[in-house]
Amino acid sequence: MSQLMDSESPVKRSLTRDSVLAAHTLIKPHIHQTPVLTNKTLDRICSTPRAPNKLAPKINLYLKCENFQKVGAFKYRGAVHALLHLQNGTSSLPGAPTNQTHSPTILTQSGVITHSSGNHAQALALAAHTFGIPATIVMPHISTPAKIAATKGYGARVIFSGSTATERESVVAQLMSEKPGVVLVPPYDAVDIILGQGTMGIELAEQTAPRKLDAVIAPVGGGGMLSGLALAFSGTGTRVFGAEPSFQGADDCKRGLEAGRRVEHVSSLTIADGVRTPVGVLPWSVISAPGMVRGVFAVGEEEIRMAMRLIWERVKIVVEPTAALGVAVVLFDEGFREMVRVEVEREGRDEWDVGVVLSGGNVDLDAAGALLARGVGQWEVGRGLGVVGVDGDCEPRVQDVAG
Amino acid sequence: MSQLMDSESPVKRSLTRDSVLAAHTLIKPHIHQTPVLTNKTLDRICSTPRAPNKLAPKINLYLKCENFQKVGAFKYRGAVHALLHLQNGTSSLPGAPTNQTHSPTILTQSGVITHSSGNHAQALALAAHTFGIPATIVMPHISTPAKIAATKGYGARVIFSGSTATERESVVAQLMSEKPGVVLVPPYDAVDIILGQGTMGIELAEQTAPRKLDAVIAPVGGGGMLSGLALAFSGTGTRVFGAEPSFQGADDCKRGLEAGRRVEHVSSLTIADGVRTPVGVLPWSVISAPGMVRGVFAVGEEEIRMAMRLIWERVKIVVEPTAALGVAVVLFDEGFREMVRVEVEREGRDEWDVGVVLSGGNVDLDAAGALLARGVGQWEVGRGLGVVGVDGDCEPRVQDVAG
Repeated sequence: MSQLMDSESPVKRSLTRDSVLAAHTLIKPHIHQTPVLTNKTLDRICSTPRAPNKLAPKINLYLKCENFQKVGAFKYRGAVHALLHLQNGTSSLPGAPTNQTHSPTILTQSGVITHSSGNHAQALALAAHTFGIPATIVMPHISTPAKIAATKGYGARVIFSGSTATERESVVAQLMSEKPGVVLVPPYDAVDIILGQGTMGIELAEQTAPRKLDAVIAPVGGGGMLSGLALAFSGTGTRVFGAEPSFQGADDCKRGLEAGRRVEHVSSLTIADGVRTPVGVLPWSVISAPGMVRGVFAVGEEEIRMAMRLIWERVKIVVEPTAALGVAVVLFDEGFREMVRVEVEREGRDEWDVGVVLSGGNVDLDAAGALLARGVGQWEVGRGLGVVGVDGDCEPRVQDVAG
Repeated sequence: MSQLMDSESPVKRSLTRDSVLAAHTLIKPHIHQTPVLTNKTLDRICSTPRAPNKLAPKINLYLKCENFQKVGAFKYRGAVHALLHLQNGTSSLPGAPTNQTHSPTILTQSGVITHSSGNHAQALALAAHTFGIPATIVMPHISTPAKIAATKGYGARVIFSGSTATERESVVAQLMSEKPGVVLVPPYDAVDIILGQGTMGIELAEQTAPRKLDAVIAPVGGGGMLSGLALAFSGTGTRVFGAEPSFQGADDCKRGLEAGRRVEHVSSLTIADGVRTPVGVLPWSVISAPGMVRGVFAVGEEEIRMAMRLIWERVKIVVEPTAALGVAVVLFDEGFREMVRVEVEREGRDEWDVGVVLSGGNVDLDAAGALLARGVGQWEVGRGLGVVGVDGDCEPRVQDVAG
């Protein structure tokens, strides 16, 4: 009986820091340990008041560059983690073969499926290609040709659907009924995905040691990354914060935490296109748990755009709008800034060390011109910022090499 | 008498590999050891025939990311090297105080001067600011506001001139006559500058050890960097190549080597604006010496633009057009590609390891839209390239941290 139970129920894996550590050990040979960059100019700008009547905290940023991850985004971590467990017969995904029933044939024949128009599509496509597992990706027919080409380029079968969640899901359901044994690998609402994304936190802590980061801030869309980071840093003393766009209600996580209840629907066309989704059920269970996430802050579209441009201009790296959310909060959210200032003072410290996750670099370069264009809110050197531009340097730290 | 001689003549420093090594030891605490990045997709594209009737060499690229250097360009190396020798009374620059006459007062009062509209202006401004030396930068009045602001932001005094070389030089001459003791720090035509730029070669070799690079390719404008690299790699077995734009005769180094005589005038508006100048006298003496530089290759404007876009898109870093010259040669110059293919075959090897210097990242983001726009020559995934886009990964290697 217990044998039968095992073969029918998925493996239970707990949402704990130890599980994130185990995930890191498992996926380490397959991912890039992305570099952590620092930049004195960015620190100086962050540590300068935004307006004459404001005070500024003293902040040092540590940029975890997941734009340098395989496929150009952190999503590869979760996808690889999920597939390794599938291969090992230790997956926690519904319908996955367990130790007892596991056969490589199942995976090489039926494969995996997901729906995504973004980085998860490419991440799953490449991870599946690497492990020789067939992948089917359901993409909205309105996806940009570049994204479709990239996903196909990674060897996946692309099936088109309508653009609403209902339309996508019905296509997935139909494909799954046609192909028994195919396993759905969701973009964020799964234990193995959350644990995989959390591994970036383990790396970040290792790379910045012996310094202990005072805080880490990361974008929150479906919440896989934020919940993973919260687990990775739980009990370490490093506070975890989320960053969201406020445009058209995309700040569902912030609003949900304020209301004490998950927001289930979001319909926003924020330029931070990686976080247009509501937080998933499992990520929410972590994010909303006491002491896990210390706060979520929301910023406007122009602030995201300015932060993105500043990163391109000063750090000399390509990041997508979503990836600029954390820097935008540190630069522009007076609530966050005042909180840091007060904490620094209360603790008798000089400054805070803040890790910021730059989640990805998959921006459409054809559209980049408009995104980068000098607008009303253009960042001017010296505009109420005191001395800036004294050096545009970038200090890479502790950057081991994945082969 | 010999004392008097010493105090009047500048320090002699030889153009040798040992001098580059000494320069590296001297400037190491003041510069960033920039990372060396690799990228499997770029390698795959380089190792794919450009046309059905062509053969492809197998090439692995090692990108030396000087866009991550202070001020966003390699020029900081030469500027810091020149100023450290000035401070120490060991400068080889004409008019520099020597050991006997050296007084910190001279430097803190009269300072340094140069003319540049590009990265050397910002490099000298920041280096001088760091050492507390006043800097005067003569810039053409047509320089972009961003460049003027950046140079002023680094604390330099900016004086405007006409846009021709004659106009610039006459303004510099006048300023020097008004301020006795001021020392001219030229952008490339000086021993201390050449040795400073060469230090990137020492780092690159260290970072890629124990592998010995088969070749290194770098942009050539005034030739400070290419001559420095030639010295750094002399006697090591690593071949050094130059990369130039062909537009409007900007390939003066290539033409000069073919004719056996330095080309003295260039008037080109190539998008690779860092290399619009002819090779200087001293750099030429190194570059044209037997066995120092194995060849110089020239590429078209569209090829530079495509290479630049490919670096932004795949490596996720911001580079200026000039910085894309080396990659453009590796991708598009069939002369270079055929040479590599033949050499690899002749040596019974499988592939070549090629270091490519990405010289800087100071691109005007307002103009980036046009530079990046999808044009006739747009890079299409799969366009005659076999399987590409299978992973957009980036492997950072051996990236020690300057504090």
